[in-house]
Amino acid sequence: MEFSIRAANVEDCRDIARMIRELAEYEKVADHVKVTQRDLEQDGFSKNPFFHGIVAEVPEQHRTKEGHTKIGYALYFYSYSSWTGRAIYMEDLYVMPEFRGKGIGKALMSKVAQLGLAAGCNQLNFTVLDWNKSSLDFYLSQGCFDVTEKMGYHCIRCEGEALEHLAQP
Amino acid sequence: MEFSIRAANVEDCRDIARMIRELAEYEKVADHVKVTQRDLEQDGFSKNPFFHGIVAEVPEQHRTKEGHTKIGYALYFYSYSSWTGRAIYMEDLYVMPEFRGKGIGKALMSKVAQLGLAAGCNQLNFTVLDWNKSSLDFYLSQGCFDVTEKMGYHCIRCEGEALEHLAQP
Repeated sequence: MEFSIRAANVEDCRDIARMIRELAEYEKVADHVKVTQRDLEQDGFSKNPFFHGIVAEVPEQHRTKEGHTKIGYALYFYSYSSWTGRAIYMEDLYVMPEFRGKGIGKALMSKVAQLGLAAGCNQLNFTVLDWNKSSLDFYLSQGCFDVTEKMGYHCIRCEGEALEHLAQP
Repeated sequence: MEFSIRAANVEDCRDIARMIRELAEYEKVADHVKVTQRDLEQDGFSKNPFFHGIVAEVPEQHRTKEGHTKIGYALYFYSYSSWTGRAIYMEDLYVMPEFRGKGIGKALMSKVAQLGLAAGCNQLNFTVLDWNKSSLDFYLSQGCFDVTEKMGYHCIRCEGEALEHLAQP
């Protein structure tokens, strides 16, 4: 199937917000999504953006029955490893279910890798849920490795009242 | 013990590079460190920096026997959660062994939390090695939680030849 991948712009935020909700539903945590279209517009498309995005589009003739032509996206930001230097972090990678198996997810991920290498990054990092075996298998087949499994790293988070409390001198 | 915490500047990169090596030795992976003082200078202190840093300093009378007064640091960068929006990521948190137990690590982490909240971040994220129980216990005592344990997230990485290969269209 014909598709194209391009940098996201502020007009894509409505579709990205929709697909973020779809991805959260797939991950069984739809109630965790607090981010709105307006948040994405402000946080990704103003000076010093917190993230960047790319979208996958199909031609009109392949639009979904709801009329969508933006059918996949990835969000990423630049990060840093104190061991290996510049890195790129892929926050989300999503393709709508009916468009899977056509190489669109691979193409999105490949684009993030290209952007990272172009910026001098040595690593592409992201997370995957341990029950999501099909995604994990795909990533492993692309030469990725499980840092948590291999090296013992756990993700730790502070948020809400704990974060407010921590910030008190 | 008297100490102060301030934003890192380019003149701190020599000490930060030294402490990055010390931290990697503590984590038993000293051979993994490729980052040099010059990398830190370029990547953290030019336009669109890949990270920011803070350092902990003690007065001259408490300097180490090697003459160091910069005895701790944290590196951080801004990131994004597609569920909860703006976030801050703490890449490293380190205090030299002889200065531990004096609240310096807590003060560095507190400063990162303050910087995050000031920028509108809802989360502070970082990783910890599963064998590093004393660090994990400290973080949990501060109200942090283990995202890998609780939600099943694993860190995945692509680097080197696999990253080059992935980037090929």
